[in-house]
Amino acid sequence: MKTRKTTAPQKMKKKSAYTVAVVGATGAVGTEMLSILEERTFPVEEVRPLASSRSAGGEVSFRGDDVTVKLLTRDSFRGVDIALFSAGAGVSKEYAPVAVEAGAVVIDNSSAWRMDPQVPLVVPEVNPYDLEKHQGIVANPNCSTIQMVVVLKPIHDHAGITRVVVSTYQSVSGTGKEAMDELAEQCRQLLGFGDVTSKVYPHQIAFNCLPHIDDFVSSGYTREEMKMVNETRKILGDPSIGISATTVRVPVFVGHAESINVETKNKLSVAETRAMLSTAPGVQLYDDPSRELYPLQVHAVGTDAVFVGRIREDESIPKGLNLWVVADNLRKGAALNAVQIAEELVK
Amino acid sequence: MKTRKTTAPQKMKKKSAYTVAVVGATGAVGTEMLSILEERTFPVEEVRPLASSRSAGGEVSFRGDDVTVKLLTRDSFRGVDIALFSAGAGVSKEYAPVAVEAGAVVIDNSSAWRMDPQVPLVVPEVNPYDLEKHQGIVANPNCSTIQMVVVLKPIHDHAGITRVVVSTYQSVSGTGKEAMDELAEQCRQLLGFGDVTSKVYPHQIAFNCLPHIDDFVSSGYTREEMKMVNETRKILGDPSIGISATTVRVPVFVGHAESINVETKNKLSVAETRAMLSTAPGVQLYDDPSRELYPLQVHAVGTDAVFVGRIREDESIPKGLNLWVVADNLRKGAALNAVQIAEELVK
Repeated sequence: MKTRKTTAPQKMKKKSAYTVAVVGATGAVGTEMLSILEERTFPVEEVRPLASSRSAGGEVSFRGDDVTVKLLTRDSFRGVDIALFSAGAGVSKEYAPVAVEAGAVVIDNSSAWRMDPQVPLVVPEVNPYDLEKHQGIVANPNCSTIQMVVVLKPIHDHAGITRVVVSTYQSVSGTGKEAMDELAEQCRQLLGFGDVTSKVYPHQIAFNCLPHIDDFVSSGYTREEMKMVNETRKILGDPSIGISATTVRVPVFVGHAESINVETKNKLSVAETRAMLSTAPGVQLYDDPSRELYPLQVHAVGTDAVFVGRIREDESIPKGLNLWVVADNLRKGAALNAVQIAEELVK
Repeated sequence: MKTRKTTAPQKMKKKSAYTVAVVGATGAVGTEMLSILEERTFPVEEVRPLASSRSAGGEVSFRGDDVTVKLLTRDSFRGVDIALFSAGAGVSKEYAPVAVEAGAVVIDNSSAWRMDPQVPLVVPEVNPYDLEKHQGIVANPNCSTIQMVVVLKPIHDHAGITRVVVSTYQSVSGTGKEAMDELAEQCRQLLGFGDVTSKVYPHQIAFNCLPHIDDFVSSGYTREEMKMVNETRKILGDPSIGISATTVRVPVFVGHAESINVETKNKLSVAETRAMLSTAPGVQLYDDPSRELYPLQVHAVGTDAVFVGRIREDESIPKGLNLWVVADNLRKGAALNAVQIAEELVK
């Protein structure tokens, strides 16, 4: 486990507006970051979109202006207050310390720093207090973790979670733009009775579910599954919670869904759970089976909330609940959460 | 709960070939029943396709002949030895007793008789012995139950299952042909940037997951979820097993997948589980992550086996396993299982 060398907490200087770098500004999440900074009127003095040589030189739009994307180099961070990274773990490992050295606070959307004990892993509705300990880098959790912990947090505070069994229904936008193109193209091929070609995924994703997200580890789990286990424990600050995850890619463009089974120390009724979640920060209760209302991926797209519904008592154990949780994985699962962290830092 | 009036077990007369009626012969499952009878060279003397007035008069193909579909009436079962029903619970409730009265043994694919204590609910690889108690009607379990119990049975025999948490990824063919048409049509509409129209499902199914299969009951569960609970206990003959289900429709044409978490009395390692399942009847072990081999819906289509992979120890409890189980819901989940029951009956 790599650790950050800096030991003294690095505080954000108070300003009326900030210079914000976006590393990976042309990707699916980077683009979303720019539009969320604009939409939430984050106090931006200067935006500095950065990318690799493949995308540098192009333009992105910010507050009606076309801003030129600059090449990411070790000199990119001079004068930057906040650097939002979403360009993969390799780029984050190399450049986040460079940005911190230049005086920026890094909010990193990759997996590079998440499990570093010196780096806070933050969902602002869940553990904003962990931000105080940051030493220049704050990690943004994995998309599938974020939407789960927003719902688990009030349950854990209220009734004490002992175990979670989760199965996910994750959209292809989590892989990136080329995966969205592959899903559309394969659908066109199949509906036209053509042959299917797979480049991004190892198997056909159109009209099929792939129980395989990220690489496999020796236990037979995938890295995505282990992220849900380890990140959830770190964010909730409770390594005693048992978590078992199965992560599955489904032929959906945007929006992740999760079937979550929770076991608690204290009994929670459906009515208590609904009442509690209806006022929980970041949560939108959407649970009226009699009117066929339950969270759906197509409804979550473009929204900020984590939707929860299908709340049922688990009759197989004395104290258990089943939940169906949906969010926009590009927004709350990535870009929005990163911008919310920035908002907390400048509060 | 309705019960059958007949009390004496009704045995199948041994013959060299049988007259087989197929009720609902033009539906998705009925058509599959005819092709499986032919493919497995079931000893058919005469096939009698039956349907409502909407489909009667048309023709179905059997062993190279075009056979006229007759109107289902109370006189349809004269001389019939075996009647395969797949025309919905209403038709089964009304006509199964008529067929039995006429001397046929009914194998019913609907939910009408499954939980009747006098009616055996049978998966031939799991509980063929229950067939001995039949009194004219044998029930075919729900598709999502069948593929789960084929895998649970050897685990239960070996290690004693105490609890199951299952989340499903069920294809639209489980709803029927019109749902398959709706998925294709909505994909065409969306890929062409048109408006989406939903007729079969309450919400868009293309590029979306619906956590809603069959009607809701007062507990917040759906009937589909309760079928998995109640039918699994009946088939395994053990009402003490705790089962918690979340059933979800996914935008896949054919093939159901299930993420199954199992807790056992005795510890099972992954190696033991693989060894056991590799020789279990009806099961096809397909579990080599290093070569990206795991069960997939598109691979299961048109096959007879229940595929199992992604076998992992559940690290959140002392004795638990995670499994990923896939089968062709029209074949093993319906038509094939019904024909296998017929094969057992004439053995």
